[in-house]
Amino acid sequence: MTLTPDQQAEIDALRGQTQTTLRATVPGMEQHLYHARPVLDHGFVRVIDYMGDDSAICQAARVSYGRGTKSVSNDEGLIRYLMRHWHSTPFEMCEIKLHVKLPVFVARQWIRHRTANVNEYSARYSILDREFYIPAPEALAAQSTVNNQGRGEALSGEEADRVLRYLRDDAMRAYDHYEEMISDEGQQGLARELARMNLPANIYTQWYWKVDLHNLLHFLRLRADAHAQYEIRVYAEAICEMVKDWVPAAYKAFEDYRMGGATLSAGALDCVRRMLNGEEVTQENSGMSKGEWREFQGVIGSQ
Amino acid sequence: MTLTPDQQAEIDALRGQTQTTLRATVPGMEQHLYHARPVLDHGFVRVIDYMGDDSAICQAARVSYGRGTKSVSNDEGLIRYLMRHWHSTPFEMCEIKLHVKLPVFVARQWIRHRTANVNEYSARYSILDREFYIPAPEALAAQSTVNNQGRGEALSGEEADRVLRYLRDDAMRAYDHYEEMISDEGQQGLARELARMNLPANIYTQWYWKVDLHNLLHFLRLRADAHAQYEIRVYAEAICEMVKDWVPAAYKAFEDYRMGGATLSAGALDCVRRMLNGEEVTQENSGMSKGEWREFQGVIGSQ
Amino acid sequence: MTLTPDQQAEIDALRGQTQTTLRATVPGMEQHLYHARPVLDHGFVRVIDYMGDDSAICQAARVSYGRGTKSVSNDEGLIRYLMRHWHSTPFEMCEIKLHVKLPVFVARQWIRHRTANVNEYSARYSILDREFYIPAPEALAAQSTVNNQGRGEALSGEEADRVLRYLRDDAMRAYDHYEEMISDEGQQGLARELARMNLPANIYTQWYWKVDLHNLLHFLRLRADAHAQYEIRVYAEAICEMVKDWVPAAYKAFEDYRMGGATLSAGALDCVRRMLNGEEVTQENSGMSKGEWREFQGVIGSQ
Amino acid sequence: MTLTPDQQAEIDALRGQTQTTLRATVPGMEQHLYHARPVLDHGFVRVIDYMGDDSAICQAARVSYGRGTKSVSNDEGLIRYLMRHWHSTPFEMCEIKLHVKLPVFVARQWIRHRTANVNEYSARYSILDREFYIPAPEALAAQSTVNNQGRGEALSGEEADRVLRYLRDDAMRAYDHYEEMISDEGQQGLARELARMNLPANIYTQWYWKVDLHNLLHFLRLRADAHAQYEIRVYAEAICEMVKDWVPAAYKAFEDYRMGGATLSAGALDCVRRMLNGEEVTQENSGMSKGEWREFQGVIGSQ
Repeated sequence: MTLTPDQQAEIDALRGQTQTTLRATVPGMEQHLYHARPVLDHGFVRVIDYMGDDSAICQAARVSYGRGTKSVSNDEGLIRYLMRHWHSTPFEMCEIKLHVKLPVFVARQWIRHRTANVNEYSARYSILDREFYIPAPEALAAQSTVNNQGRGEALSGEEADRVLRYLRDDAMRAYDHYEEMISDEGQQGLARELARMNLPANIYTQWYWKVDLHNLLHFLRLRADAHAQYEIRVYAEAICEMVKDWVPAAYKAFEDYRMGGATLSAGALDCVRRMLNGEEVTQENSGMSKGEWREFQGVIGSQ
Repeated sequence: MTLTPDQQAEIDALRGQTQTTLRATVPGMEQHLYHARPVLDHGFVRVIDYMGDDSAICQAARVSYGRGTKSVSNDEGLIRYLMRHWHSTPFEMCEIKLHVKLPVFVARQWIRHRTANVNEYSARYSILDREFYIPAPEALAAQSTVNNQGRGEALSGEEADRVLRYLRDDAMRAYDHYEEMISDEGQQGLARELARMNLPANIYTQWYWKVDLHNLLHFLRLRADAHAQYEIRVYAEAICEMVKDWVPAAYKAFEDYRMGGATLSAGALDCVRRMLNGEEVTQENSGMSKGEWREFQGVIGSQ
Repeated sequence: MTLTPDQQAEIDALRGQTQTTLRATVPGMEQHLYHARPVLDHGFVRVIDYMGDDSAICQAARVSYGRGTKSVSNDEGLIRYLMRHWHSTPFEMCEIKLHVKLPVFVARQWIRHRTANVNEYSARYSILDREFYIPAPEALAAQSTVNNQGRGEALSGEEADRVLRYLRDDAMRAYDHYEEMISDEGQQGLARELARMNLPANIYTQWYWKVDLHNLLHFLRLRADAHAQYEIRVYAEAICEMVKDWVPAAYKAFEDYRMGGATLSAGALDCVRRMLNGEEVTQENSGMSKGEWREFQGVIGSQ
Repeated sequence: MTLTPDQQAEIDALRGQTQTTLRATVPGMEQHLYHARPVLDHGFVRVIDYMGDDSAICQAARVSYGRGTKSVSNDEGLIRYLMRHWHSTPFEMCEIKLHVKLPVFVARQWIRHRTANVNEYSARYSILDREFYIPAPEALAAQSTVNNQGRGEALSGEEADRVLRYLRDDAMRAYDHYEEMISDEGQQGLARELARMNLPANIYTQWYWKVDLHNLLHFLRLRADAHAQYEIRVYAEAICEMVKDWVPAAYKAFEDYRMGGATLSAGALDCVRRMLNGEEVTQENSGMSKGEWREFQGVIGSQ
């Protein structure tokens, strides 16, 4: 259960109120409104509001390019053209507002994306709930042995048990003490803004997050990527499902040019040209470092 | 006539299509959709889309402050509290998208407000129309004699006539030459991106401009102010009329705390306290410069 | 001890290397370079670099206002004028880069100021140190009984002891478990990016933070304010001491117009005018709510 | 002659004053300080100030990645790694401040890059100089016949002569009328903020522009590109020369990964893989549109 009864009641009430509007409206996106999509054990993402659609992107582009854009036969082609040529401003003309419930350590990564509007639950002002992220067994991964910033196999056996016990017990104890410290029964009661410092980073917080489509796609490219931490990636993936229904043409171009694409350096492009000319190119004669060569192989490899 | 037949046809078509939505909808704002509000001689402002309403501001604030905000009896009181205490993030949760047609010299002032999304007509790509701002007689003001950055009385008589003649004739001649230079009849035809440099700053351009309510109110505070240049102020005033219908409680608080309010320095506050205590305070014993004192008098004076 | 031996050695080496430059240089600010100013029990702020000085503010303003600014007799007067009239862009022409060590819950407040550049220590990549903020006895405050977001008196006696014991013991236990979980001795070792979730919000992190003077002053106005949480206020105050030595004229104007100043609403200004005219104004006939009236009294009161 | 005598005198005075500092200093960049580099017929770029160097980028990255970055053997390798993986925040830790004199139509393109600080000469406040950009004969290009947004061959003969005559005469006449309208001799004199609207877009303006290295490189990638308009490209190229001397390792990585690199879509990467496997890939079986295929050929072609 991820929403409080109050929140659910508010949502149900709002869901019942259909309005008429002259604004651009996307039936597929309306389906997402007021439905909280569960993420992790207690988190969720839900769309609060949205502005614009695929046509709005084209409409803005056509203001810029005037009659010139008439030559592009259709909206999808225009959107692909804009994405390919990094014309980002038309994508900024769409906006989305999400309500997200997420662990604090995920929130700390997320907030680095600065071009967005945020209203977060204030633990200075209000009391946090007793809700902590405890990884599912298959997400309880070992440190990667090849990558400082990655994960290896899932832990198993006694080690996994001990980790889960620590995470659960430490969270519960920290929260017990939090409650005890702020209590004003028979004592003064510690200020909330101080007591919260005892709570670990897997406690859940929530916020409203509003962002334009261009910056959202940038966020998704980094956070829905295979190298992103699993716990933020699942949020990014949940949002991808929404964007796909909201601006299908833009999302398709995004998948092709951003998620599935790759940037090759001048040196790498030169190697591709030499290889296409039949030359045998190796790391040694490529001019690339071992790391670059490995990544290059990953991009152009036959897999 | 400020819209092209194409634009008008597109607007009429869109106006006919009422959609149903679960999103927050403001009847007063729906009235503005697809109606271009004329500004200056050929300009306009029209609302393309909007997100949120007064309730959306409160909803976001309540996420931040949690149960604490229950104590504030109603939305209007909460909005006033937020405005008074410079809590800007809840206002960022509303967004508006405008289509604006405006002279280039106004656009150059406007664009200094950086926290917004913009798609401007590209004179590199397309051909500008023959439309120039020519001030109405009463707007044809003399340089202020007391303020480097201000206007005095309207010009009159022969001087006014000459100015209008210059503005009109120079604009027409510049446009004739622009057309002649880009023409490819019997010649190569100069590149548009070069030919446009011959056009004066009173030519009209247009753009889509999208901004959140917090940054919009900041823009309006500066540009709807009596010290703003008349030609941008009329746009700001037209937008004020829309905001008033969109988020009436926020607009009312804005009028009271921002447009009608004033910031007093520590020194000025000290003078107010001394005056309330019956002391005779003059510029000489106020600790303020002459300029500051004059402004202070303007703020607290009985006028 | 707030710096690692490595960091101290690097600092000492850099301190020994005086360079010559043609750039604007502020002797008072040079004194701060490479000196870490202690804040809280394990934190610090130190200036890494700075750009510009009081003259740089005026130089930029004079580009904007051209010959017009010659009439302002001196730099200090011009800076006061710019500050009074909210001309913020000249202040953006100065920049500062700080290295800050701070508890995570302070970092979370700080980062809400989005217009800045940040490089934070990555607990995904590296191992955090065993350093936690434990409040000094006098900072161990009770929840305010009048303000949801404030502090009352310091706790005392057994309650204070218990709180300190909880904070210390929970932090130590959480860190013990953190170390145990990531250890790869005789086990796989949990990924760092997961293990960190067990650590409470009073653990220290560090970052480089770079910001322009305008946005820094905005940060300081909010965070050096009496209503800011003590734990971030002490950082803001430490930075104020640096800014005072860096751009003394700008800092002085900031103190007068921002820190010591106040914004009065249209209604409040009207009350001031009525009071100066000898009228008896009370909350009832002021048009203000009780909350507004109390704040108004605080601003113009005789205290 | 691009600087006023006043500006030159100020520069000479500042150039004579060497300061000592503990800040990061780049000898190659010091050479640029106070030297205006001419661009176009009356424009220039000059470095006013800078913050940071190649080491500052690494220093910030090492705060983030802690001990992990020790494994990268040297600064140049680390910088290449950061650039390749789009880790932009360390590059934001360097900052540059430029004084630029440029035609208004170039300024209008430039200002679209919003993440920068700007102080522009105010034509509302002050009187503009009689200086206009008149293209050199070889820059007087025809409209491209293949690209709405491009240039073809240079105009020649009578057509070129007529264009130059129009540009010169219209500018001179517009400026004569500007002067006449603002004159207060024997008349009131039109307000400057109005009179400026008569001036064409090739008049010169000037500004201070301050930006961090990450955003500067983004600007340079777009504006030093072959598809950028010539008149802004020459400014970008002049700045490239400065950046090369300021942060040589970062600039080299930028050239390899950004300027010389290319982003391939998922579909294009698939084609590369098929071609490397010996398959004959044509536009028809590539899944690309004609436009995409042409661009793809440009990237991997043998030329």
